[in-house]
Amino acid sequence: MKIVLLPSEIATVLVEALPYIREFAGKSVVVKLGGAAIDRESDLALAQDVLLLRSVGVRCVLVHGGGPQVDAMLRRVGKEPEFRDGLRVTDAETLEIVRMVLVGKINRDLVATINSQAGSEPVAVGVSGEDAGLLTVTPADSAFGFVGNVTDVRAELIHRLLDDGLTPVISTVGADASGQPYNVNADEAARAIAVAMHAEKIVYLTAVPGLLEEANDERTLIPRLTSAELRERLKSASVGKGMIPKLKACADAVDQGVNFAHIIDGRVHHSLLIELLTDHGVGTMVRKEKSW
Amino acid sequence: MKIVLLPSEIATVLVEALPYIREFAGKSVVVKLGGAAIDRESDLALAQDVLLLRSVGVRCVLVHGGGPQVDAMLRRVGKEPEFRDGLRVTDAETLEIVRMVLVGKINRDLVATINSQAGSEPVAVGVSGEDAGLLTVTPADSAFGFVGNVTDVRAELIHRLLDDGLTPVISTVGADASGQPYNVNADEAARAIAVAMHAEKIVYLTAVPGLLEEANDERTLIPRLTSAELRERLKSASVGKGMIPKLKACADAVDQGVNFAHIIDGRVHHSLLIELLTDHGVGTMVRKEKSW
Amino acid sequence: MKIVLLPSEIATVLVEALPYIREFAGKSVVVKLGGAAIDRESDLALAQDVLLLRSVGVRCVLVHGGGPQVDAMLRRVGKEPEFRDGLRVTDAETLEIVRMVLVGKINRDLVATINSQAGSEPVAVGVSGEDAGLLTVTPADSAFGFVGNVTDVRAELIHRLLDDGLTPVISTVGADASGQPYNVNADEAARAIAVAMHAEKIVYLTAVPGLLEEANDERTLIPRLTSAELRERLKSASVGKGMIPKLKACADAVDQGVNFAHIIDGRVHHSLLIELLTDHGVGTMVRKEKSW
Amino acid sequence: MKIVLLPSEIATVLVEALPYIREFAGKSVVVKLGGAAIDRESDLALAQDVLLLRSVGVRCVLVHGGGPQVDAMLRRVGKEPEFRDGLRVTDAETLEIVRMVLVGKINRDLVATINSQAGSEPVAVGVSGEDAGLLTVTPADSAFGFVGNVTDVRAELIHRLLDDGLTPVISTVGADASGQPYNVNADEAARAIAVAMHAEKIVYLTAVPGLLEEANDERTLIPRLTSAELRERLKSASVGKGMIPKLKACADAVDQGVNFAHIIDGRVHHSLLIELLTDHGVGTMVRKEKSW
Amino acid sequence: MKIVLLPSEIATVLVEALPYIREFAGKSVVVKLGGAAIDRESDLALAQDVLLLRSVGVRCVLVHGGGPQVDAMLRRVGKEPEFRDGLRVTDAETLEIVRMVLVGKINRDLVATINSQAGSEPVAVGVSGEDAGLLTVTPADSAFGFVGNVTDVRAELIHRLLDDGLTPVISTVGADASGQPYNVNADEAARAIAVAMHAEKIVYLTAVPGLLEEANDERTLIPRLTSAELRERLKSASVGKGMIPKLKACADAVDQGVNFAHIIDGRVHHSLLIELLTDHGVGTMVRKEKSW
Amino acid sequence: MKIVLLPSEIATVLVEALPYIREFAGKSVVVKLGGAAIDRESDLALAQDVLLLRSVGVRCVLVHGGGPQVDAMLRRVGKEPEFRDGLRVTDAETLEIVRMVLVGKINRDLVATINSQAGSEPVAVGVSGEDAGLLTVTPADSAFGFVGNVTDVRAELIHRLLDDGLTPVISTVGADASGQPYNVNADEAARAIAVAMHAEKIVYLTAVPGLLEEANDERTLIPRLTSAELRERLKSASVGKGMIPKLKACADAVDQGVNFAHIIDGRVHHSLLIELLTDHGVGTMVRKEKSW
Repeated sequence: MKIVLLPSEIATVLVEALPYIREFAGKSVVVKLGGAAIDRESDLALAQDVLLLRSVGVRCVLVHGGGPQVDAMLRRVGKEPEFRDGLRVTDAETLEIVRMVLVGKINRDLVATINSQAGSEPVAVGVSGEDAGLLTVTPADSAFGFVGNVTDVRAELIHRLLDDGLTPVISTVGADASGQPYNVNADEAARAIAVAMHAEKIVYLTAVPGLLEEANDERTLIPRLTSAELRERLKSASVGKGMIPKLKACADAVDQGVNFAHIIDGRVHHSLLIELLTDHGVGTMVRKEKSW
Repeated sequence: MKIVLLPSEIATVLVEALPYIREFAGKSVVVKLGGAAIDRESDLALAQDVLLLRSVGVRCVLVHGGGPQVDAMLRRVGKEPEFRDGLRVTDAETLEIVRMVLVGKINRDLVATINSQAGSEPVAVGVSGEDAGLLTVTPADSAFGFVGNVTDVRAELIHRLLDDGLTPVISTVGADASGQPYNVNADEAARAIAVAMHAEKIVYLTAVPGLLEEANDERTLIPRLTSAELRERLKSASVGKGMIPKLKACADAVDQGVNFAHIIDGRVHHSLLIELLTDHGVGTMVRKEKSW
Repeated sequence: MKIVLLPSEIATVLVEALPYIREFAGKSVVVKLGGAAIDRESDLALAQDVLLLRSVGVRCVLVHGGGPQVDAMLRRVGKEPEFRDGLRVTDAETLEIVRMVLVGKINRDLVATINSQAGSEPVAVGVSGEDAGLLTVTPADSAFGFVGNVTDVRAELIHRLLDDGLTPVISTVGADASGQPYNVNADEAARAIAVAMHAEKIVYLTAVPGLLEEANDERTLIPRLTSAELRERLKSASVGKGMIPKLKACADAVDQGVNFAHIIDGRVHHSLLIELLTDHGVGTMVRKEKSW
Repeated sequence: MKIVLLPSEIATVLVEALPYIREFAGKSVVVKLGGAAIDRESDLALAQDVLLLRSVGVRCVLVHGGGPQVDAMLRRVGKEPEFRDGLRVTDAETLEIVRMVLVGKINRDLVATINSQAGSEPVAVGVSGEDAGLLTVTPADSAFGFVGNVTDVRAELIHRLLDDGLTPVISTVGADASGQPYNVNADEAARAIAVAMHAEKIVYLTAVPGLLEEANDERTLIPRLTSAELRERLKSASVGKGMIPKLKACADAVDQGVNFAHIIDGRVHHSLLIELLTDHGVGTMVRKEKSW
Repeated sequence: MKIVLLPSEIATVLVEALPYIREFAGKSVVVKLGGAAIDRESDLALAQDVLLLRSVGVRCVLVHGGGPQVDAMLRRVGKEPEFRDGLRVTDAETLEIVRMVLVGKINRDLVATINSQAGSEPVAVGVSGEDAGLLTVTPADSAFGFVGNVTDVRAELIHRLLDDGLTPVISTVGADASGQPYNVNADEAARAIAVAMHAEKIVYLTAVPGLLEEANDERTLIPRLTSAELRERLKSASVGKGMIPKLKACADAVDQGVNFAHIIDGRVHHSLLIELLTDHGVGTMVRKEKSW
Repeated sequence: MKIVLLPSEIATVLVEALPYIREFAGKSVVVKLGGAAIDRESDLALAQDVLLLRSVGVRCVLVHGGGPQVDAMLRRVGKEPEFRDGLRVTDAETLEIVRMVLVGKINRDLVATINSQAGSEPVAVGVSGEDAGLLTVTPADSAFGFVGNVTDVRAELIHRLLDDGLTPVISTVGADASGQPYNVNADEAARAIAVAMHAEKIVYLTAVPGLLEEANDERTLIPRLTSAELRERLKSASVGKGMIPKLKACADAVDQGVNFAHIIDGRVHHSLLIELLTDHGVGTMVRKEKSW
């Protein structure tokens, strides 16, 4: 990957990046990863980005989902995944599998990937929403079983880990007041965590370039819009189904105090780094006010 | 559970307990739980003990195994558990199940049980040996696959969690330098953690009253012995197979700086509390020197 | 004093005591001792209680009076004690004897008793109300001579001694703005100190079981009442004369912010420990509201 | 006391004094007062000096004796003082009186005098050698009863009080390991305290101008000498009996690490201030080496 | 300079000075020096005063002007100084010379003089109003060129230097927002700095005894007056022209929160020390209220 | 300066730069600027670089000389500059001009330039070697007058300013023990300061590309060499006269503990940034060992 640049080109990138590095130092950024499989190369580039950002003081938190992997495991134990209105119907047996796959597999693999890039300083730490009361939930709707809505976030544990130079990787299983675990939508949980942490940014890594004016035409990418404009668009039919929870979470996040919400393309290597440290963002940015 | 005691009896217990409370305040105690199913009542009593001890400043850490539950899950996905010389043969697929069961199920259930007793202050936090480089391992023997021996313990994360008033519950999956996970014997991992933490005590909760002179005769319980005496006994045939790793770990722990190692009966409710806070211990105590 | 209890009985006491230990850790408890002679055994048990409570973080302060001993010394130098309306008439010569007996004898003996039980760590420190402006007084009534009412308490010295792990033993001699010493009622001074310290509890150790519905019938002990109820009772004639200052001080203390006021039997060994660390209090408890 | 000085004269005093103020700031000075009655005027001037020195950061500690007052009180209770070889024979009854007079009277009066000069900030605190293990003693000689030699000094309490801006006034009653009190020679106790505190200076306030070459001829005052020279003189007969313990204590103090020992005239008002803050000392100064 | 004083005279000065030393410890005093040549002796005495005051905790800051020296340098490079209404007309070339003379010569000489008296601990540090945004200015009036009025003071640098035990010597060149330097009136700049520092005192060292009722008659010195009285006098014609900016600055300083403003005679050696540490001030004192 | 780069190119620069940013965070870099005029553009780029590096935690210190400007000013006051063996002969009058030009002009202009780029946070602070004893010197050789060699550096002031987020700009005038100022060679002073600060790097900004194998042929640039190799080269005649002090200072710096010494081209904009934050250095690097 030897790229030859002129001194003036290098200087341009650095002069542009340093103010961002300063600006984000000490601030929190919540990064949501999808469960949809992204290739190993992208995973390693992401791990590198997170470690580089951490090294210059950005407090990165990863939040992950894991739908496809849960489906696979359910089938492996002979149980067909069941959905209603796009939400997973989660009986006790399903919940047990969800928890095992999220906490005991996906989270573990992410922790291992980051630590494999971290040399002699393994900094990734897996956390579940059940730990130290991180995510308190109430049942969403009895029809869906153990699916919960986040009602309270205790971000202290996350802040402490970050204070200690560690990188939390969060599985979105929550618990109610009695300790009963619940499955929680990961896009939504990431939003709740970002709000509770007073994060500067929430970034959704997806397999699309961002929000498009016209589906499938990347040239119609909408680079930035306000939460009000976004809510307006959500009413129209043009937006792809899978994007709705993410987009709603973006609008909610900025309305609740997160300064920036982004939807960016996780398939572009180092897109997180570029988004944070250069003037020309990638993907779609959502803010509360039109302040750009 | 209303027990009526005389003031003088109450005073006796308190006058005896308070010096212990003072002595253990700020010190670390590592408690190893077996994977063998103990009844719900005992689990709740243990959770209470851990929370009470924490409330008076004892730094309790739980370490758990989980052999039977791993076997069950392996069979559920259609794979027969395989052992050689009493050790689990761990291929990649087995490892994945081990990790899911330990980290994603048993650890989670323990965290949930403790938090259910902790009222408005959920303090339990699940940790895996892979987090922040807690357990570094090397392969034990290629014949067993991904089974590792602990070569290094980074106890900082555990100390930080304890400093923050949290109670770590540790699954004994480790990783090698490249981030590859390995299954680790839990008795042995508990010992390594206790040594690295400069713990005051390591306590093995078992389903037996302690080390017996004659198997099955509880009246021959050996209340205390030195590590040298214990090693002598380990050479003889009389000791039950299942006890050997625990006993060896006890001898190693005290020889490596842990002040006390105990094997106590997890079936007696609050046996942990009684062991720590009264003059008459329960089960078997191992020390380096005959200082009692 | 070998009492044999079952593990379940021991566990019951401990499970009950530990939450109290946690609750009182870091909080202040003011204990008032009468000057009336209590036997050596009780003194040693009290010294033990204070040291044990200190060892688990309770900030104990002792306040003492000393009427009988002052009378004895006055007679020894050939001066008959003189009282009016139950209050000692205190001329300059009497004041000098009061001060010598309280500060130079009773306080000293208490300090010595506690330190004799404290092994290699003598923690008791005698303090007089004149030290560092602890008790500022104004003359009560010229008819009584140098008898003062407390108008200001500087609790800093007491807090600092407690912060340093020391146990203050306070003689209730105060001083006015010019430095002139005055004799102060000890029940009342203890109340003023507890209020100024924001103490959690004030405990009056007496030679009676508590407040009785019918004098001399211990079965009519009133276990708890509000300050309003107590003030009502104080209007009736049934209350023993000697108890009135203590009871009034209890009512004032809780009305001025001390959470609990107690009158307990100093003759029962370890009654202080039992009162603080078990559910079933001993003697009479006064609170501002009926919150029990 | 209106003295009119020229600006240049004032400047001379100040320019001379300020370096001393700087030099002594944060350093400890132990001042030993005799029990022999000094007039009220001198007491007030001394109290002023101590408060002024404290105000500029000098850590002053007062240590007092009280022979004459003890004799008076003994006689008042009908007991003739008894001496052997110049030392008080101290039976239990005598000890009780010694303690009452030193701790409950002389110490109290000193505390009151200082606080009367301290305005709204009463800083004097009485301390006995029994408090917090300040003075540990062993019996000197059974022939003298409860007379002890200091074997250990715990200066922490004194340092803490000084750290808090308070001025300790110390009575020289000590205790043995069992808590039994003993009478201690005050000159000697002051020395032991100064050594334990790593004091910069120990100052003996006496009723003489210092050490004289020829008794009663003030013109033969010896302004300074080394501890070796002083020990030599102590062998000769010329030195007044009453001065011997002080002189010996001075020699011991400087040999054990105190930088300066002084014997000055307590009858000259503000002699302490002048000694510390000007070039021309008053009285006799003892140092280990001839470094002047 | 050997002056022989009686012990009682010395004591009088010390007893008077110590409370002032205590009062000013930790407080800031801004001292303004004129540019008018004062003899070397006075400079050394001032340097000594500043160092002595510093040694007892007074936070002294020096601010200097330098009109005559600027005139001399201007003439040396062949440029005639130009004034309008008493203010220097400051073109770019003049500004360059002003800056070189103030920062590169007068400030340097003051720093060197202080450090020459400071033995092994050179504490003086030169600072210009341009450093770390100390003095932000706006142009006063285009007719005068680069002459600015202070609009903002950033006193952090000065506080930090003082915290580190250093003595700032300030040249009064300021800068506007773009970094363009401006000449600033030193009397006025000293006032602005004193106000921003919440100084206790501002002291103008002049070549006159203070404010006189009748010019040239030193016996008519006005020892103290309020800012309101001073403003009244400024309206009358009697006040000497050169004194007006200083007097106005004094009135402004106390009205803006500085507790005391003084005009004293810099020709009297140690006048600063005498002013601060004795009851009988020298020169004229201005306060907001008649509180003396 | 709009340069369009591909995301992968940007990522390459950032991935390369971030580890350097982390590595240098908290470390000190001393940058020596020549007095030879560099254009305004370069000055602004350098100011930007220093501020950007500061913003990511690099502790930059600027040290400047100023020969040509001194010559100009000397001539302006009618004095011909005089040199012997390449060193300025510095009589008292010359010294006064040197000090005014360095401290009162060049230093000031650098401070103003940096602050003009620093927006609302002016961070540059001018310092002279005379301040707080920064540079202690002894006369070099009486033939040269007031020319001194640095014998001691007190770097505390510099560290404190850096700790406070400020950027020191240092003029190389020193003082001897008596406070007499001396002119000091700036290349040499920069070396002494870097050594005393335990700086990571010293960077000489020059008007050449670095050390050339053959003078005037930039293609023969020597990118790196050890101090031993450099000393060898210094013996040969090929090295340009003006470079000798810089080169000698580089060799001395690394031999005395500075990790890297660089000679880079100050005419290339942002050369400082590129040198520090990319793999391919610019100019010539000197190290003690061949560790590259």
